[in-house]
Amino acid sequence: MEEIVQFELSNEFRERFQRAVDEKDESFIKESLQGVNPADISTLLHEFDTEDSKYVIDLLPLETRAEIINDLDEDIREKFLKVFEPNELTEIVNHLDSDDAVDILNELPIKEREEVIANLDNEEKEANILDLLRYDEDVAGGLMAKELIKANVNWTVVQCIEEIRRQAENVQKVYSVYVVDDNDRLLGRVSLKRIILADDKKKIADIYEPGLVSVETYMSEEEVAQVMRKYDLEAVPVVNMQGKLLGRITIDDVVDVITELADEERQIMSGISGDVEEADSVWMLSRARLPWLIIGIIGGLINARLIGVFEDDLLRITAIAFFIPLIQATGGNVGIQSSSIVVQSLANPSVFNDSMVKRLVKVFLVAALNGIMLSLLVYGVNMITGGSQDLSFVVSIALFSVVLIASFMGTITPLVLDKFGFNPALASGPFITTTNDLLGLAIYFYTVHLML
Amino acid sequence: MEEIVQFELSNEFRERFQRAVDEKDESFIKESLQGVNPADISTLLHEFDTEDSKYVIDLLPLETRAEIINDLDEDIREKFLKVFEPNELTEIVNHLDSDDAVDILNELPIKEREEVIANLDNEEKEANILDLLRYDEDVAGGLMAKELIKANVNWTVVQCIEEIRRQAENVQKVYSVYVVDDNDRLLGRVSLKRIILADDKKKIADIYEPGLVSVETYMSEEEVAQVMRKYDLEAVPVVNMQGKLLGRITIDDVVDVITELADEERQIMSGISGDVEEADSVWMLSRARLPWLIIGIIGGLINARLIGVFEDDLLRITAIAFFIPLIQATGGNVGIQSSSIVVQSLANPSVFNDSMVKRLVKVFLVAALNGIMLSLLVYGVNMITGGSQDLSFVVSIALFSVVLIASFMGTITPLVLDKFGFNPALASGPFITTTNDLLGLAIYFYTVHLML
Repeated sequence: MEEIVQFELSNEFRERFQRAVDEKDESFIKESLQGVNPADISTLLHEFDTEDSKYVIDLLPLETRAEIINDLDEDIREKFLKVFEPNELTEIVNHLDSDDAVDILNELPIKEREEVIANLDNEEKEANILDLLRYDEDVAGGLMAKELIKANVNWTVVQCIEEIRRQAENVQKVYSVYVVDDNDRLLGRVSLKRIILADDKKKIADIYEPGLVSVETYMSEEEVAQVMRKYDLEAVPVVNMQGKLLGRITIDDVVDVITELADEERQIMSGISGDVEEADSVWMLSRARLPWLIIGIIGGLINARLIGVFEDDLLRITAIAFFIPLIQATGGNVGIQSSSIVVQSLANPSVFNDSMVKRLVKVFLVAALNGIMLSLLVYGVNMITGGSQDLSFVVSIALFSVVLIASFMGTITPLVLDKFGFNPALASGPFITTTNDLLGLAIYFYTVHLML
Repeated sequence: MEEIVQFELSNEFRERFQRAVDEKDESFIKESLQGVNPADISTLLHEFDTEDSKYVIDLLPLETRAEIINDLDEDIREKFLKVFEPNELTEIVNHLDSDDAVDILNELPIKEREEVIANLDNEEKEANILDLLRYDEDVAGGLMAKELIKANVNWTVVQCIEEIRRQAENVQKVYSVYVVDDNDRLLGRVSLKRIILADDKKKIADIYEPGLVSVETYMSEEEVAQVMRKYDLEAVPVVNMQGKLLGRITIDDVVDVITELADEERQIMSGISGDVEEADSVWMLSRARLPWLIIGIIGGLINARLIGVFEDDLLRITAIAFFIPLIQATGGNVGIQSSSIVVQSLANPSVFNDSMVKRLVKVFLVAALNGIMLSLLVYGVNMITGGSQDLSFVVSIALFSVVLIASFMGTITPLVLDKFGFNPALASGPFITTTNDLLGLAIYFYTVHLML
């Protein structure tokens, strides 16, 4: 009886393993990785350079090799695939599900991709891969795998078990058998549990469950994720417009989609362009940050000009300058809060949305309520600490206006961005802050100019 | 042969349905909801008040009723459960998996909860529920369900199939059978596919796969999600410290955890406290926004004081005021970028993290690179547009310093927050902006004071 493998990547092990790689100690490497989950080996290899990783991988069984390459981070893998010969890649592609195979093929230069596909001697696999290459990566067709088990509704349970046996090697995770009619149109599913418990001579037609949730090839990955979440599905069949069964999407791919979308949103909200992480080079990290910083700087320079225009007011009452940060920070905070509420609604759409007018009335009420409270607070503090009554009044009026207008902008911007196909989360980042800084300053100075 | 149910919630249907509810048109309600997925009925009911929803639900079969209540949003459900009698709740709890049953019981007042549990006549269910109620909601023990199929390693395949038959009603989703020894310690698993294809007289010991990834009861929900993502699992067994099999967590619950964590992070990053959504009342939305707005206002008032201290400098050279927004906006942007990179690393931990010193050196290099480029840009623009050479120089020096210090603060803050058990995403929100505004201003004025 084997023990459950608990693979701990201690620093000691890493150093020992590094030594083994340096000394080309084949037997240590093979022994220490024996029975280790490929996902853990991938984590380990992320610490080594391409050449060393290739050396280690070549020592492992083909199946493990294929799973490791499947598990590697995309940016690492792209570098990594360059050191493989086309025939090595063909072997690996042969061991992967069609959806994972296509992900790898998409990362190869087109000439090499063709070569790898041409080398495949499994015709069914080749046809599956060529079929999947036609879809964009971010729609249901691009997420699905062709491997699935389907049974004709007129078969018996025995025939169905025969089909499972035939497909057993190709299809790794079997949740249920899809049931189709003579034209391959999806009718429903029958669970493995039901097959095990059913009489062998029973017809599939008598035991299958009709009424199955499916997605169509052109649906976006966000929509697929929403459907699978809503109906708590571990796998969803993909059909074409005629209802013909084409493939299936498993939940592990959708979990990756959900996590990537969340990571992407976080980056957009914090003004980082491009998919970077802490482990990337100084140069890559700098470059990903610069664009929004420069936009912020340009906003700041326009701010400087704008204040310059009102220099006379400022010379008359210097205290005007004191409240610029207060006005701008509040505008920024309110704007981001408003847009984030809208982004959340867009991410979790309910079936009936309130009309635009109703939404804006609500935004206005929330803004008015908060605006009044904040203005009173600031007015009170200014009075207590002996500020000028006139200026305090003007600051509070400006603050109230800024809260109203920043709320409105924060609500409208993500909706407009979404309408034109941009990620609405852009409106919760430096974009809205920069705009609101300028807007806030303009409102403030306009109020000052008008009232003082 | 039934058609696949495609339930479209058109506005016409909603109006027709509302009319049926008003007129208590039982037959229309029953007919129109016949065969509709409970998740779709839940969506529909979100539009109706508690009383109307209760009326509709009571017309449906018990099983559908239980699934709908399981699907409802938590805040709606809490209101909703109040109109149910304890004996009605007992029936519903009886039809749910233990983990879902416990979620509902946790929302009831303690007296009612006890009553519902006492009414259960299924002793196994009662024991399971009492067991699960002991765990916190956000650890593996609180996520797991007790329903699973396990087989002793010494059984034959036939005995295993018998066990599946016995449990078939209790366990909805069967992915695989867990294999245990005589002391109930988890040894591995055997997939249903393998059971279907194996000879009935074979021993489980001969066909099971050892080396299974499992989680322990005390692991946090974030850790469970990370494990399931890393190993692409659709279900993970939960064991205690002795390795005894206690339950299993299915991926649908983890998908909810991942989505909730992302929503929570978005709210924290945008300075919204409390779990609100656009559909909530004006009052709730206002209240969720106020705390961080007030903190921002307090920061703004301190800012005003700080500028006041340097009033003499400002009277001498008014243009100093022009660049306050530029310095503060850049400080805010840099701080949020830095903290967001750290938050990302904390969310996707790799096994080997760089040492603290290495991390900070890298942060310093990135900040220095960006700081130099931005400072040069600002200096250049100021010179071209005819700004004072001295002030332009001072602004650029201050800007460079602000970029360095804001990067450092943005890196340190989430790490400290995380260390003390707070959500590190707090450091990507108004918290860091407010701090950096003050810090930026102080650095700017200090530089001005020193050099001009």
